[in-house]
Amino acid sequence: MLLETTIEKINELQSEAMEEARNHQKNKIKPYGSLGMLEEVAVKIAGITGEVSPDLGKKAVIACAGDHGVTRQGVSVAAQEVSRQMLIGMLNGGAAINVLTRHVGAEVICVDLGIVEPVDDDRLVVKRVAPGTDDISQGPAMTRDQARAAVEGGIEAAVEQIKKGTQLLATGDLGIGNTTPSSAILAAFTGFPVDLIIGKGTGIKQDAMQRKISIVEQALSINKPDTRDGLDVLAKVGGFEIGGIAGVILGAAAHRVPVVIDGFISCAGAMIARSLAPQSVDYMIASHLSEEPGHKIMLTWLGLKPMLHMNMRLGEGTGAALVFNLIDAALKIVREMASFDSAGVSDDGLR
Amino acid sequence: MLLETTIEKINELQSEAMEEARNHQKNKIKPYGSLGMLEEVAVKIAGITGEVSPDLGKKAVIACAGDHGVTRQGVSVAAQEVSRQMLIGMLNGGAAINVLTRHVGAEVICVDLGIVEPVDDDRLVVKRVAPGTDDISQGPAMTRDQARAAVEGGIEAAVEQIKKGTQLLATGDLGIGNTTPSSAILAAFTGFPVDLIIGKGTGIKQDAMQRKISIVEQALSINKPDTRDGLDVLAKVGGFEIGGIAGVILGAAAHRVPVVIDGFISCAGAMIARSLAPQSVDYMIASHLSEEPGHKIMLTWLGLKPMLHMNMRLGEGTGAALVFNLIDAALKIVREMASFDSAGVSDDGLR
Repeated sequence: MLLETTIEKINELQSEAMEEARNHQKNKIKPYGSLGMLEEVAVKIAGITGEVSPDLGKKAVIACAGDHGVTRQGVSVAAQEVSRQMLIGMLNGGAAINVLTRHVGAEVICVDLGIVEPVDDDRLVVKRVAPGTDDISQGPAMTRDQARAAVEGGIEAAVEQIKKGTQLLATGDLGIGNTTPSSAILAAFTGFPVDLIIGKGTGIKQDAMQRKISIVEQALSINKPDTRDGLDVLAKVGGFEIGGIAGVILGAAAHRVPVVIDGFISCAGAMIARSLAPQSVDYMIASHLSEEPGHKIMLTWLGLKPMLHMNMRLGEGTGAALVFNLIDAALKIVREMASFDSAGVSDDGLR
Repeated sequence: MLLETTIEKINELQSEAMEEARNHQKNKIKPYGSLGMLEEVAVKIAGITGEVSPDLGKKAVIACAGDHGVTRQGVSVAAQEVSRQMLIGMLNGGAAINVLTRHVGAEVICVDLGIVEPVDDDRLVVKRVAPGTDDISQGPAMTRDQARAAVEGGIEAAVEQIKKGTQLLATGDLGIGNTTPSSAILAAFTGFPVDLIIGKGTGIKQDAMQRKISIVEQALSINKPDTRDGLDVLAKVGGFEIGGIAGVILGAAAHRVPVVIDGFISCAGAMIARSLAPQSVDYMIASHLSEEPGHKIMLTWLGLKPMLHMNMRLGEGTGAALVFNLIDAALKIVREMASFDSAGVSDDGLR
């Protein structure tokens, strides 16, 4: 029962460490709060780790891959085989996420949760549930046991990295067609009309968008996911990599490791994680606001604010990787900035 | 006539290099455009520098300092002396901008354009116009000659860095009270009602905000700045460091060096720069959206989109410094990402 024991371990943030972090910020030579989210994220990290100035030097993006039966409905511009090609590209270090994680001094861990055709590569973490989900427009994506296996695969992947010393995690995704189940998850949890949620994915045109809206509506009406039950939503209209992402978040939260959430697909995983363990949201750090119209609604539902507004819509963890650098900056502010006393600056009215 | 010769040198972006940069992006293993502003900024930099993959390794934030006579009207929470204390703190490496520039591998160049009491320090670049401006609520901030001197001081400061090999610049500011002249500049150029523009600065309360609104309205009605004439606006309701920032931008643009614009004060300088040389906007890269309510209006007027939404309101160049890291990331995407051909990924519909 890895899922249950993991959820049980997720506790409240440490309020004393957060208070200490706030007081620490008040002594820096700037008006309190004037560094905005750089200050807020440092306080949150203190609450997560229990330390005002933790070492988060070892970082990793866990990129979860999966395939989607619904691609046969023509919801995506790229063919399903591209998932596997991109996974190989990522293992070989040539994808955007490889460039960006190298840039910020992090690793990419690729996890196969269930793409159609396996990849034989020692660098790949294999947590395969099945060769792709079933078509959600015709019935459930997967069984309840498979939904559990996907989430537990993500938990295992996160815990393996944490045991190797990783102190900061991020989620990433790879899977042609995965904006469709993510949109279905969003619509299920929030009740938002599907036509307000659906975007271009990585590039479909207007007529294809209309088709995608119908497919998501059909998936919801056929499957009737129970939104009080995260595993049911995942099983009915989700995807293996989305379950994996939820698991990564739960595993991080259970071990008091901050986890940066990438874009639309990662937020769908975060919604599943929240529905399984509401407290897990406290361990999430939002990264960017993507071009997907539904992403803002997801972030609002999660109560998270993104730092980057860069119209990105690639996934892979690319937005999250960029935020690793902002987190490093926030922690350096805590460690390196002078105090009013040490710098001889008058603090009248500024603290 | 340094100002005139500088403005004459500002040319159009190089459209061929931009087209080459776009084609380069189209071959990367991702849907074209899916990295959003990471792609856009790389294209803009190609247009500025004429190179698809330029080396922007040597970077500097030019932090312009000045004092403001209007502080005697109680528009700021901190006392005027704090400008000098903060400048010393910055020279000693303990301010937020020092931490963040070290973090992103850049230098801070502090320039005194006219704080009240001089600082004797070899590390300080001295371009003093006068010991603080006059009170804009009672008459002009400075003479027209002083406005020119401030802008030319900024040009000189930028060109000195460029001659030392700096390839990427950013603007920063330091000056207690400088949100007041910046608000006046914004209201003058845009005609926006002053009460929609005024914010808390670095921390004033509601009653002080009302007072600040009246002061800005008074400054505009007494001085009647001519918005067809950037030097007139600067002289009537500006500040020395704001003129310096405009000069840094013009100097960068004349030498085809990209310049990252920090927050509210830097954007006031950017508005002056644009009014003196409209083409200079093409050389600007916006950084963050600050908490100042007027900042969004400035960015809209300039036609710029900020990458960071972090509720920062400190100035110094702190938001711009963080964007240096995003620019490095954007250029690494150009250099390091695999192409469809090299990675064996199908590009159907993705280019």
